[in-house]
Amino acid sequence: PQPSAGTQRQAASAPQGQKRPLNRAPCQLGPRDEAFQHRPRAPSCPPGAGISRAQVWKKGGRMFSILLAVHLALLACTLVSSGAFEKIAVHDYDVFFLLTVMMLIVIVWIIFYLVNTSRCPDAILCKDSHAGPVWLRGRSLILFAIFSLVMDVFKIGYYSSFYSCLSAIKIIYPIVQAIFVIVQVRWLCSLCLDLMPFPFFCRCGLMLTLTTNLAVWMSAVTDESVHKEAKWATGMRSGSTEECNCNSQICQIFKNGYFWLYPFNIEYSLFASAMVYVMWKNVGRFIDHHSHHIHRLKFRLFRRTFFVGIVLGLIILVSGLGVLIVYEVRVNSSHEASKKNEALTMYYIFNIVCLGLMSLVCIGGSVIYRFDKRDMDRHKNPTRTLDVALLMGAALGQYAISYYSIVAIVASTPRDSISALNLTYALLMIAQHTFQNIFIIEGLHRQPPKEDHKHDLRQKDPYGLTFLVQSLAGPKKINWRRKFLREISMFLLLSNIILWIMPAFGARPQFDNDKELNFYGDSMWPAIVDICLPFGIFYRMHAVASLLEVYIMS
Amino acid sequence: PQPSAGTQRQAASAPQGQKRPLNRAPCQLGPRDEAFQHRPRAPSCPPGAGISRAQVWKKGGRMFSILLAVHLALLACTLVSSGAFEKIAVHDYDVFFLLTVMMLIVIVWIIFYLVNTSRCPDAILCKDSHAGPVWLRGRSLILFAIFSLVMDVFKIGYYSSFYSCLSAIKIIYPIVQAIFVIVQVRWLCSLCLDLMPFPFFCRCGLMLTLTTNLAVWMSAVTDESVHKEAKWATGMRSGSTEECNCNSQICQIFKNGYFWLYPFNIEYSLFASAMVYVMWKNVGRFIDHHSHHIHRLKFRLFRRTFFVGIVLGLIILVSGLGVLIVYEVRVNSSHEASKKNEALTMYYIFNIVCLGLMSLVCIGGSVIYRFDKRDMDRHKNPTRTLDVALLMGAALGQYAISYYSIVAIVASTPRDSISALNLTYALLMIAQHTFQNIFIIEGLHRQPPKEDHKHDLRQKDPYGLTFLVQSLAGPKKINWRRKFLREISMFLLLSNIILWIMPAFGARPQFDNDKELNFYGDSMWPAIVDICLPFGIFYRMHAVASLLEVYIMS
Repeated sequence: PQPSAGTQRQAASAPQGQKRPLNRAPCQLGPRDEAFQHRPRAPSCPPGAGISRAQVWKKGGRMFSILLAVHLALLACTLVSSGAFEKIAVHDYDVFFLLTVMMLIVIVWIIFYLVNTSRCPDAILCKDSHAGPVWLRGRSLILFAIFSLVMDVFKIGYYSSFYSCLSAIKIIYPIVQAIFVIVQVRWLCSLCLDLMPFPFFCRCGLMLTLTTNLAVWMSAVTDESVHKEAKWATGMRSGSTEECNCNSQICQIFKNGYFWLYPFNIEYSLFASAMVYVMWKNVGRFIDHHSHHIHRLKFRLFRRTFFVGIVLGLIILVSGLGVLIVYEVRVNSSHEASKKNEALTMYYIFNIVCLGLMSLVCIGGSVIYRFDKRDMDRHKNPTRTLDVALLMGAALGQYAISYYSIVAIVASTPRDSISALNLTYALLMIAQHTFQNIFIIEGLHRQPPKEDHKHDLRQKDPYGLTFLVQSLAGPKKINWRRKFLREISMFLLLSNIILWIMPAFGARPQFDNDKELNFYGDSMWPAIVDICLPFGIFYRMHAVASLLEVYIMS
Repeated sequence: PQPSAGTQRQAASAPQGQKRPLNRAPCQLGPRDEAFQHRPRAPSCPPGAGISRAQVWKKGGRMFSILLAVHLALLACTLVSSGAFEKIAVHDYDVFFLLTVMMLIVIVWIIFYLVNTSRCPDAILCKDSHAGPVWLRGRSLILFAIFSLVMDVFKIGYYSSFYSCLSAIKIIYPIVQAIFVIVQVRWLCSLCLDLMPFPFFCRCGLMLTLTTNLAVWMSAVTDESVHKEAKWATGMRSGSTEECNCNSQICQIFKNGYFWLYPFNIEYSLFASAMVYVMWKNVGRFIDHHSHHIHRLKFRLFRRTFFVGIVLGLIILVSGLGVLIVYEVRVNSSHEASKKNEALTMYYIFNIVCLGLMSLVCIGGSVIYRFDKRDMDRHKNPTRTLDVALLMGAALGQYAISYYSIVAIVASTPRDSISALNLTYALLMIAQHTFQNIFIIEGLHRQPPKEDHKHDLRQKDPYGLTFLVQSLAGPKKINWRRKFLREISMFLLLSNIILWIMPAFGARPQFDNDKELNFYGDSMWPAIVDICLPFGIFYRMHAVASLLEVYIMS
């Protein structure tokens, strides 16, 4: 239906209505704003006089919410970083108190929002097709949320084993966190891809949610580092539960359980942050429905490939798991230098082989893209921009660690075989990140192939269920380049999973190998690794998600 | 003149020519590319099939140059940060060696570029009106460059006083730096606002220049911190010249001189970086000449104001200088706690008064903007976007220091009057930065007033000389809001100057006041201040530049 100029003008000026008091229910926008709800799907609004004030207000709302987020994030960062050190008079329960308060506010906001929008189901204004790549909206968030909940249960169990000698906040915190996770997932899954009514209120709420997730992430990362501190003295707090007894077997299970599940909680927080950020970007934005087709693609795992990528990837994955287990056992159990060195040698060799293969494969993939005749996709797409920015940004963490390693190895003596392996490992790490980023960015910027394109124009189902039906359809001709790209992305995906698992579940050659620790000292090197490694781990996670998208789009 | 469709197509496809070998002179672009040089000033190019490959190549070039910059910057960062510490086996001459090599490469690139473009004066393709706000292109860069040169002379003099016990690189470094500054200023002033031919080569060269400037900045900031280390033991290197004698008076003059001039060199590097970044953004970009008028505004200092802002600002400036001198003398000369506390009290009270006034004035200014009927300027403008991003980003430095201060003061005892003053100071610092950012961002996003607007449409002189003629014209009616805004921005400008001078020339209440140092310890607090304060200082500098622009546009 062709919108009349009047309707468009009305729609454009609707955000002006937000200047009314904030305690009004977001969905009761009044008669004038009804135009907004039944707004036709116009690609964009004409720049008229009416939009000017709305634009001003939008800029103001954005700025205010950014300022709110910056201040909250800095406050949380200050407390979390101070709380990490033994000698600083900020305790972990101060941090937990702040986080609990933040989470409670967000829970109240989300519930308020859910209650108000559920009262009028029409309030869901517009679907954002960009925000819905398979990985982001998909099961991954729910998966991580479930693991986070299990972690919270373990944490509650652990702390309640000796609640008498703890401050209450240590038990309240995981309880509130569990509620927070449930409420947030419920909210993200029901509303995540919709534009919000009531922009100002939404922006601030979203930024608050984003900051809370980031603060929880910072706290989890710090907690994990503190937990590992026992092995490498870094001046961090050693955990205030030392005076309490955790001798019973159930308590030990709880303790180990929750620390093994930390990586999932860490990823959940970052995932949720990324999702909330995309929503924040979309508040008040008018979506271009021309590019609707991009993410409505089918996921066909075991079809039209030679299985080479998957098989090779699975071999790497399984052998990587074996290497990790042997490494952990050897490094943690024995204090003999020779056994430790053997374990390190094995770890480095596996990584060098894996990274070398991945680099070659990425280069191959980029070369194939050079000959690819598909058009570049140049539509504005905030989700993709965020993806690329996160890839490039998160890679900086690993880059920094590698450069510091290289400088330490080159500048120090003796130059033994472990050092040579470490140097190769660091150099390959840099190369692999670079080539993989290039490959992924090229892949994300391609238009989906023509035949998919045609199908998608017919697709109307917004809930991604079509792929079930589509996957039952007969096979079509597919060119060899696409097959190769699929092999490549599948192999890279599986390799990235193992490279995520290794550091996420505790392999720390950066500390087991004394070189850098001796070179930079006990305070600088742990600081570098503790700050940069979480980004490196997140990079792997995020690369997996992006590679899945590249796989689907090939 | 209305461009024909054919000419536009040709112009759009011109960057494709860059796929030819790199050793070709950038200005000999061949017959087809002539269209580029005589290209009509079209607001934008139509998205056609021809642009696709050029776009791909542009994206590739951008990505490659970003990767180059990231890797170089990380390498430099690693070496600089390692070189700052005594116990790490990376020495300052390693850092100087790297910087010297980088500067030499940039010098060669710039000379190559200058030689090639001077051979055909027509190669200057297009003026970017955005890149030319008064402050950025103006005398400021030259001013800072001159001070940097003087610093280099002092440095050469200082090091050559005892060249026998030094590595040669310590003398070579300032010499190369001086050449680098001269060549770069010559280049920036002759070519800075022009789009480049030969995009790929230009992008890489520009990114190399940007990274070199940032590396020099990092090194200068670190050197300055190292110099101040004597007073607060932080484990940094104490300077390898201790074993040499610097007893002669001339040597002492050289030494003090070059440390007093460091702030200018630091600002020069950042200024040059910002300028090079804008140029990098503009490579291959098509400029919208509709918004040409924005920066062609007149600078009328002593007209149409009540002088209240200037007078008040000057009072603050002069009294601030007095406070700084008294503070420095008292803190550095006496070791009595009471005298130090007196100096600190004085310093805090002055700052509290100044920041309080500035906050109030900023709020007033923002309120006036609420009632301002001028249109918002919504044209895309990379220079302004960079300005705003730099303002927001640089403010983070001061925010972080303030938050850490607040946490330390609130969490520690005893709570004496100095702590109360420090707390007020930290809180007001946060408030003032926030309000000032809001005021400046609002100001930068306004259209210039109507009467200027009309004049500018008649202005054709691209070299900004018109303001001389314009300023001789008769006075016009000016409304009270604009007058107030001018008063406000002039007052803020002068206040920001004194708030820049104080930390740039050595006032460090963060260390003179023991509170935070005792709370966070000898390694964490210096790390926080040394990393964040340079951004805080740059913020003041940059705010002065932005306020000048706001003043001119009001």
